[in-house]
Amino acid sequence: MSIDALIADLTPILGPEGVLTGEQLASRQSGVWASQEIKASVIFRPSSTKELSQTLKSCNLFGQQVVVHGGLTGLVSGALTRSDDVVISTERLNQIEKISVDDRTMRLQAGVRLESAQVAAKKRGLMLPLDLGARGSCTLGGNAATNAGGHQVIRYGMMRESILGLEVVLADGTIIDSMNSMLKNNAGYDLKHLFIGSEGTLGIISRLILRLRPESLSQETALLACTDFSHVIALLNRFDRSLGGTLTAFEVMWKNFYQLVANSTPPLADKFPFYILMEALGNDPEVDRERFIRVISQAEEAGELADAVIVKSGAERDRLWQLRDGVDKIVDLGPSKVFDVSLPLSEMDQYVIEVKQRLKSALPKSLCFVFGHVGDGNLHLVCVPNQEELKAFREVEKAVYNPLANLRGSISGEHGIGLEKKDWLSISRTNDEIQLMRLLKTSLDPQGILNSGRIFD
Amino acid sequence: MSIDALIADLTPILGPEGVLTGEQLASRQSGVWASQEIKASVIFRPSSTKELSQTLKSCNLFGQQVVVHGGLTGLVSGALTRSDDVVISTERLNQIEKISVDDRTMRLQAGVRLESAQVAAKKRGLMLPLDLGARGSCTLGGNAATNAGGHQVIRYGMMRESILGLEVVLADGTIIDSMNSMLKNNAGYDLKHLFIGSEGTLGIISRLILRLRPESLSQETALLACTDFSHVIALLNRFDRSLGGTLTAFEVMWKNFYQLVANSTPPLADKFPFYILMEALGNDPEVDRERFIRVISQAEEAGELADAVIVKSGAERDRLWQLRDGVDKIVDLGPSKVFDVSLPLSEMDQYVIEVKQRLKSALPKSLCFVFGHVGDGNLHLVCVPNQEELKAFREVEKAVYNPLANLRGSISGEHGIGLEKKDWLSISRTNDEIQLMRLLKTSLDPQGILNSGRIFD
Repeated sequence: MSIDALIADLTPILGPEGVLTGEQLASRQSGVWASQEIKASVIFRPSSTKELSQTLKSCNLFGQQVVVHGGLTGLVSGALTRSDDVVISTERLNQIEKISVDDRTMRLQAGVRLESAQVAAKKRGLMLPLDLGARGSCTLGGNAATNAGGHQVIRYGMMRESILGLEVVLADGTIIDSMNSMLKNNAGYDLKHLFIGSEGTLGIISRLILRLRPESLSQETALLACTDFSHVIALLNRFDRSLGGTLTAFEVMWKNFYQLVANSTPPLADKFPFYILMEALGNDPEVDRERFIRVISQAEEAGELADAVIVKSGAERDRLWQLRDGVDKIVDLGPSKVFDVSLPLSEMDQYVIEVKQRLKSALPKSLCFVFGHVGDGNLHLVCVPNQEELKAFREVEKAVYNPLANLRGSISGEHGIGLEKKDWLSISRTNDEIQLMRLLKTSLDPQGILNSGRIFD
Repeated sequence: MSIDALIADLTPILGPEGVLTGEQLASRQSGVWASQEIKASVIFRPSSTKELSQTLKSCNLFGQQVVVHGGLTGLVSGALTRSDDVVISTERLNQIEKISVDDRTMRLQAGVRLESAQVAAKKRGLMLPLDLGARGSCTLGGNAATNAGGHQVIRYGMMRESILGLEVVLADGTIIDSMNSMLKNNAGYDLKHLFIGSEGTLGIISRLILRLRPESLSQETALLACTDFSHVIALLNRFDRSLGGTLTAFEVMWKNFYQLVANSTPPLADKFPFYILMEALGNDPEVDRERFIRVISQAEEAGELADAVIVKSGAERDRLWQLRDGVDKIVDLGPSKVFDVSLPLSEMDQYVIEVKQRLKSALPKSLCFVFGHVGDGNLHLVCVPNQEELKAFREVEKAVYNPLANLRGSISGEHGIGLEKKDWLSISRTNDEIQLMRLLKTSLDPQGILNSGRIFD
């Protein structure tokens, strides 16, 4: 089998636009945040589900492995390719096909960018609740394949919860049309869940029906400071209870992260151990604001708050979110490693202390910044080993991942496993779970052509 | 292979309490709403996951098919047995193992009854949001295996959305421990979804970790009347938008259902085509009530409401919910058939008209009552063929199910397929979907011992 034969087979089907090689291929970047050129022998760009099906059918017949490309914004090297790889890109599957205001659904192809879908929903007075920093580049198909998280999970769930139905093409080209559009459908197995979050290893998602929500009319934001992690937990429970279903973000920054991002003009003094960026989306601006302020006062009276600032303008809000999203400042410090672990809230404080101790003993000169979606049990740790310790990234991984095993935490709350974390999968999954994953993989993709080597070998 | 050999094999493992035959077995009912005795050759009642595993391992070695029994409240004959069947009951797996207030989770065994779990959560100031009429008898394991729905799906999702992790025993006795307790865990395939809603055909769920919510402090309820279905849709969108996330139930009753259940003293005149029972759960009694009333007034001003009554007492609320749950009154009319279809909201009005026309032409003397969880796209139709037409249940099914095919509706929004609806599965699922379901079944349960013949043959 040669790549040339596969290309000759597919060019009449996909047309010249649909098959990129040589110069055309080499001029493309390997990722949104990467400066290197993409490496691959060919990129197939089907423009319809049928073309995608024919592409996979041919690859399967040829026994040719493929790597699936969406928006190339993944953080676990899931889309990484070598020069002899065959890529299938969903970039020409980019149509928003239908928005139903009555049914509050959106039907679209997998290559549509998240931000385009957000804008389209907003134009109809509706909201797609998934939101993340990569919104301008990432695709809904990629969001589905990786079960993306983001800032509003505590209220709206992950990408999985916004997917009503999908169409997926299996390794052998079979098109599974599971385009359900209802909130409830118990007619047999709910097959979409097999493909959501499986990182393109069981099928390529080609189309989605998404659940939309009413657009919110009020947005209340506050930055809060706490002296103790037990107060952080108390506040989360208080806000979730007292804001009547409107709590949408509960992000926590540990002290040294806050100090780094807040710089010389912090909105709150930078001496506290924990800072919470809290947001509520509602539909009743006056009532919502009054309640938001009242609930924060109650927390203050209960002694759970050390300090607080409630946002008064859009500019102030943007500034607070810029703090939270200020990971760039860490990247400036040198080569770093970003983690996205998840674990029970009740274990979180102790876990962070333990990781820092382990790091200190293994890599005394390293830095570790902690922040994240604490409301979802999801933490980001960004670790910066000292230059002399650059070879020690493995030690960093050990310090972060090993304590999760006893806590039954996860090595990935939202980014997925890809190529990068597969060595650590057994921290979070039992052997029997991994065996069952393999069984599903070999049942659905017997030749192992789809995103081979991702998640597990 | 004989049943006797299997019983001899398992009795030392399960003990005399764990193996029911003869008199002990014959004295039990076949279902919560059934007066017949249960039919089976033996009921195995493991008291731990390990015993369940050993039971399945033996059955698998003997090639013995088993039927799984939870609370026996299913509505699609999923638990129906013949006299030579082997039953595995989860009734001795009935421990609530842990409630974590900080993490807002509950860990329990699969045989715990829904109401026990609800009560235990409430004692800790938390809420398990799943609620349905069978709460006193149904088990959480059964709720998980059938992905139960109920009255609060619009706000909290189905049972699936309340399950963070589970433990399941496969056909060969392998215990899959997937007891995740976090909101986010993207470490490989999320295996729990394979078992939720698969009606016990892929494994027997033995343990669950459930997500709890803050208990609500306010409950506002109203009964509304509409002259047009477009107003029903407008109201749903309005309330979902304007009640800021507190809308928890949006139940609609069609005119003749309302007339039957409301009887001689209807809370609203019984001349309107549609009645909506709407409820919002919040945490701020004063603010919530003021807003609830205001939003209903706004709907009235917009011409979407023909009449309305807002509940002033618990007794009034109970009365309204008794109307909605008044299916008994239909059962009194004679042998009937209950459906739980789902379909896009935008198609619902026309669908009901079409079903009624089809019924009228096929079975002129039949009656058809319509109500349901319209906020979730889920309708109940209860059809009562005339006595002369009793043999015509198949005609009723045709009238209800056939129009769903073009609308991509579902023959089951919440009850599942069981034995009862499997002939109709292809109305709601494509051949390729059903083939994929079969592939999963044969991969996980090669001998087909688990709930054989449920969902598909």
